[in-house]
Amino acid sequence: MERGNVEPEAILRLEPDRVVFLDQRRLPEAEVELECRSAAEVADAIRTLAVRGAPAIGIAAAYGYALASARGEDLAAAERVLRESRPTAVNLGWALDVVRRADDPAETARRIHRDEVERCRRMAAHAAALLAPETRALTHCNAGGLATGGYGSAVGALRAAWEEGLLDHVFVDETRPLLQGARLTAWELEALGIPHEVIADSAAASLMAAGEVDCVVTGADRIAANGDTANKIGTYSLAVLAEHHGIPLYVVAPSSTIDLGTGSGDEIPIEQREPSEVSTRFPARNPAFDVTPADLIAAIVTEEGVHRAPYAESLAGAVVA
Amino acid sequence: MERGNVEPEAILRLEPDRVVFLDQRRLPEAEVELECRSAAEVADAIRTLAVRGAPAIGIAAAYGYALASARGEDLAAAERVLRESRPTAVNLGWALDVVRRADDPAETARRIHRDEVERCRRMAAHAAALLAPETRALTHCNAGGLATGGYGSAVGALRAAWEEGLLDHVFVDETRPLLQGARLTAWELEALGIPHEVIADSAAASLMAAGEVDCVVTGADRIAANGDTANKIGTYSLAVLAEHHGIPLYVVAPSSTIDLGTGSGDEIPIEQREPSEVSTRFPARNPAFDVTPADLIAAIVTEEGVHRAPYAESLAGAVVA
Repeated sequence: MERGNVEPEAILRLEPDRVVFLDQRRLPEAEVELECRSAAEVADAIRTLAVRGAPAIGIAAAYGYALASARGEDLAAAERVLRESRPTAVNLGWALDVVRRADDPAETARRIHRDEVERCRRMAAHAAALLAPETRALTHCNAGGLATGGYGSAVGALRAAWEEGLLDHVFVDETRPLLQGARLTAWELEALGIPHEVIADSAAASLMAAGEVDCVVTGADRIAANGDTANKIGTYSLAVLAEHHGIPLYVVAPSSTIDLGTGSGDEIPIEQREPSEVSTRFPARNPAFDVTPADLIAAIVTEEGVHRAPYAESLAGAVVA
Repeated sequence: MERGNVEPEAILRLEPDRVVFLDQRRLPEAEVELECRSAAEVADAIRTLAVRGAPAIGIAAAYGYALASARGEDLAAAERVLRESRPTAVNLGWALDVVRRADDPAETARRIHRDEVERCRRMAAHAAALLAPETRALTHCNAGGLATGGYGSAVGALRAAWEEGLLDHVFVDETRPLLQGARLTAWELEALGIPHEVIADSAAASLMAAGEVDCVVTGADRIAANGDTANKIGTYSLAVLAEHHGIPLYVVAPSSTIDLGTGSGDEIPIEQREPSEVSTRFPARNPAFDVTPADLIAAIVTEEGVHRAPYAESLAGAVVA
């Protein structure tokens, strides 16, 4: 495997008898592949974060279902174990709904993967157009190619802006407790040659106060019909801080992340993960996501374009069937 | 050494030929003592965070100077190496100014230590009186006995509130990059029997939004004449978040932390520490402190009482000669 390969097939792919993942738990120290030979093994890879990021786990679930189909597994059981692997991202259920109705699950799963990457390229172009020259952006968690099956949503926007000469620097929130920023986003930015610095999550505010941050760009795990957005824990914190400092927060995510069946953020289930991810020694609380109210989001960018408030109207038109 | 001992002499003490520290870098895994046999070794203990917290490093510097005096070291050189060990906390220079003018440096250094602990008890009583019954507090970094030479400032306030039956729960920001909250504050709260949960720093905002936090209580490394307060990186972030959610932020610190010679936060030097504390693999930025503007602070509590805005007036009366 070529080091620093951020191409879609390097991140995840379906082979005749297995689904292969670049194991995100091992990055950046080691670039190793994880092979899953049943839907249950794919569900386990999703649950244990070998693959993570809302669009990527949708693709992974579709591949897992296609693998189950090819192997002659009980498809109702396969669908259930995949659907229950993680609760917050809506893409997972969306991808399973598509692939289970398909005549050729393998081809349909691969099309979902291709489509997600193509959507990333389109949303990245829309998002980059929002940025001024010499932008110094701040991002949180990993909304890169690793999270979307290739190219990336928020990181894709930064990649497009970099290629257009609009981007000066990226501050990368390390993103505790699992350090997706420090491990994954920094790894991608290095591979892409984009100047960056990792910071403790709690340092973002002082950089904003010092005038060193022009915008915040993040992905999303689920966007409610009113624009309220669930994303990695700490995104809401950044949204409040950005508003206080007059800095726009842009959410960049594929339309598959929008859940028109969820009216507002109050209805989004928030995954509580193992306290041991935060502390193995003392009691701990470990919410994996938080909800950013729509009124703190300057724009939501999908492959369909730039959506502004009121989101109930602008998002309804963005969702493709 | 008795485990979980948070008494002043267990945290640091002067012996005839050495200064002994409970090595804070090793907590909570191991409770081991570090012995320093020269001013330079004490300065090294301060620089490498074996002892940290503004009041504690003031006491440590005083003990280091007294040790140098007892050993017949070059006192000008001893003072210089101690004074330059860390830049942000004002207590360090303050304690050195006191001890170098003393006839008996050892006795004076021990008096500084006793006085700081006694001040903590007094400020804790003042601060606890601000809290309503069933308070759920959030604290950042470690402003406990480890940071003050005994009892603690912010943690002292929580300890007093707990003993008065006013405190229900403490959320402990883990405090990246060095995890003083997750390692030290949680260790102290466990020793004191106070219910607590460690959280990722970026989870504070969502707990505030959920109505689970009644107040934020922190220490301070330096308080300017106008009330602007330097404290561990992330404190300013909490201050903005607390204001957004209508939650008071209380700063609890001894008057030795107030620097009337510094007009505002703009003049406080902010220590930039090694990027490797944040990331050993990628470029990183690592400011150790940030500055919270006075207008985001509900009250500053010292041993003299509760100080409210306008701080230029209320703090001037708090500083003892």
